[in-house]
Amino acid sequence: MDTLFQNVWVVTVDERMRVLQNASVRVHDGRITYVGTQPQDGNGARVIDGHGRKLLMPGFVNGHTHLPMTLFRSSADDLELHTWLNTRIFPMEAKLTPGSVQCGAELALCELARAGVTTINDMYTQCRALIPALERVPLRATLSMGLFGQAENAQAQLDDAVAFHRECNGALGGLVRVGLGPHAEYTNTEPYLRRCADVARRLGCPLHIHVSETKKEHEECKARHGVTPVGLLERAGFFDGNRALLAHCVWLEEADIDTLARTGAAALHNPCSNLKLASGFAPVPKMLEKGVRLALCTDGASSNNNLDLWEEMRICALMHKGHALDATVVPAEQALYMATRGGALALGYEDVGSVAEGFRADLILVDIDRPCYQPMTNLVHHIVYAGNSRDVMLTMVEGRVVCENGAIPGVDLEEIRMRAQQYYDDVFRM
Amino acid sequence: MDTLFQNVWVVTVDERMRVLQNASVRVHDGRITYVGTQPQDGNGARVIDGHGRKLLMPGFVNGHTHLPMTLFRSSADDLELHTWLNTRIFPMEAKLTPGSVQCGAELALCELARAGVTTINDMYTQCRALIPALERVPLRATLSMGLFGQAENAQAQLDDAVAFHRECNGALGGLVRVGLGPHAEYTNTEPYLRRCADVARRLGCPLHIHVSETKKEHEECKARHGVTPVGLLERAGFFDGNRALLAHCVWLEEADIDTLARTGAAALHNPCSNLKLASGFAPVPKMLEKGVRLALCTDGASSNNNLDLWEEMRICALMHKGHALDATVVPAEQALYMATRGGALALGYEDVGSVAEGFRADLILVDIDRPCYQPMTNLVHHIVYAGNSRDVMLTMVEGRVVCENGAIPGVDLEEIRMRAQQYYDDVFRM
Repeated sequence: MDTLFQNVWVVTVDERMRVLQNASVRVHDGRITYVGTQPQDGNGARVIDGHGRKLLMPGFVNGHTHLPMTLFRSSADDLELHTWLNTRIFPMEAKLTPGSVQCGAELALCELARAGVTTINDMYTQCRALIPALERVPLRATLSMGLFGQAENAQAQLDDAVAFHRECNGALGGLVRVGLGPHAEYTNTEPYLRRCADVARRLGCPLHIHVSETKKEHEECKARHGVTPVGLLERAGFFDGNRALLAHCVWLEEADIDTLARTGAAALHNPCSNLKLASGFAPVPKMLEKGVRLALCTDGASSNNNLDLWEEMRICALMHKGHALDATVVPAEQALYMATRGGALALGYEDVGSVAEGFRADLILVDIDRPCYQPMTNLVHHIVYAGNSRDVMLTMVEGRVVCENGAIPGVDLEEIRMRAQQYYDDVFRM
Repeated sequence: MDTLFQNVWVVTVDERMRVLQNASVRVHDGRITYVGTQPQDGNGARVIDGHGRKLLMPGFVNGHTHLPMTLFRSSADDLELHTWLNTRIFPMEAKLTPGSVQCGAELALCELARAGVTTINDMYTQCRALIPALERVPLRATLSMGLFGQAENAQAQLDDAVAFHRECNGALGGLVRVGLGPHAEYTNTEPYLRRCADVARRLGCPLHIHVSETKKEHEECKARHGVTPVGLLERAGFFDGNRALLAHCVWLEEADIDTLARTGAAALHNPCSNLKLASGFAPVPKMLEKGVRLALCTDGASSNNNLDLWEEMRICALMHKGHALDATVVPAEQALYMATRGGALALGYEDVGSVAEGFRADLILVDIDRPCYQPMTNLVHHIVYAGNSRDVMLTMVEGRVVCENGAIPGVDLEEIRMRAQQYYDDVFRM
């Protein structure tokens, strides 16, 4: 069915970041067919009237997630990254099953849909279990099987990832895109990374990898390989005809940033996670200046501990000002762009992330009647510096309502909650 | 009327940070009279049943605010602090009237009450206009008239502040406490600061001042006076028998921190504001280590741009980890303590900030049924790292409900919204 939003504020987040008042937006067959201030005929459409007090904007793009980690939320905090990973996360992950992976992903998707996230880019093991979760809560998703090339079964992992691509790429009416997820430099070998790059080139699928998240990892790579992680990936062919999605990029050097800018590889920036795990401050102002493609991300729920892109956007705009001692870096407009249109482009979704005719109808309706949006001075700045994910009233992906007033059609949140609790109590509690 | 909360989770935030399940909390005559897991008789009380899925915790303490600045929200962003202050804020503030001060404060108090803040510590001009605002939304408040000792009418300002103390200290059934607010070192003179300290000592009222917010201010004070701002305040008698409330403290030196620890002066920490205005990172881990009294604060809405203590708590716990490159500093428990009990003690409220028998009933009820609190692993960590101010269902100050399900008894939010918009459009828009 068509949808007609009328009497809404619109922040277009196209290149000009236009703000429209009393506007109409029409959605037909999953795409946006009209954006403007001319009255529209509601015939044959569900009409949603904003009465001049609601905002329609692009859904948020979450560029780096590990959905099932909601099951570990708040169970391993205030620890240094490698301790966190080796003594807590890896042991819990060793106990995962398709059932728990699906459950954690369902919980995550509910949280994301409620908060207005419409696109995710996930890396995890047992990815097949994410498909039924996405069937229930259909967000736009790139799924990459995490690959550990130092493991004995490294080749079998890669073969399985290729099979997963064959089975699921384009699934759910095209909402699912499958990539390859070699986990990181330090969990792989150079020949294996080269093999991944070759396979990705052949499949035409993205490569999703953790890069220079910690100083330790960055320096150890240089000692091991004589080049930075980005240098190693370049040597392995990640940037030759491939779409490389590089999570974290905290310790990139000047030449690394130049490589990203030159090749169009994306930096997936995780503000909360980088602070919480004390990884550091990614060189975001420098990357923006050099034209690197950037997406904003939550990372998994055990290093965050929520999946709230509104927070990432705000903290991104704040943290780099403090770090640079310069209040003019990462202005509000740039933060909002990164969280929506910029993130979509970084992930390679050309027609996602703006409220523009011809674009996919990935949209959210926000209640801007709350005190924190008063008085109406600068709507974009309100969204970035004062807004709240809980003000999302409706989330639409490709024209379909996936969440409305907190409810997710066909999904029993209470049942998911109970199942998640049971998995935690019975399996993961340490 | 008495209130009995039953079947609630409780985070006590007393020294032991206890978490109770299926607990009862009784409130009588503005105070907490029972906290425990024994069944309580609901006779004569309003009974609020949490059905095992709601959390009762202390209300948040916002240690440094400028309430009326909600009128300037998002109208001056992404600017360096002194540019922001001199070219935008001071010119707008010059146009304030009692009517607009009251309106901005009402908007702020609605936002605060909805977000679960029960105590504020405000500094502003035309403070008398805050009293009718607080009559409508009765939070616990310390109000200090901002004083500019370099102005021609400096003595008249001080006289007026003393008159305001006489008129309003203890107003609204004791909810209002009046202090003195010499604005900052750089807007005052040493003799005037000494006079303020003398008057405060005589009145037994707190001294609220901005201290070492920017490096520029800190260094210029040293050049001007030969001592740091804290050193100057010590020389002026701020720490002799006075309760000193020092906002920001970003650039404190080791000796300054020792002075605060030794004298019990409070550091009022503003995470978002310090990042947004690029002031820097206050030495919070060091202050905690040395036992300095700390409160968390939003600052005014034009340097934040909301008044959400949940965010300050989370960002405080995150930013210092990133800055110190140490994920173990400012653990969740310490962040929650600072935002509630620690903040209350820093401001000098001895019986506020814990869910404990004999304490003032400044309480909030939180809906922890939402996805971001699932599964139930560690409730304190959920609150700090995943929680959201919008999940506050009920806010109580001294036993009286000041907000329930977003509504504020006796207050028409729409009317305040319209008035705030009109002030902005007609008076402050540049």
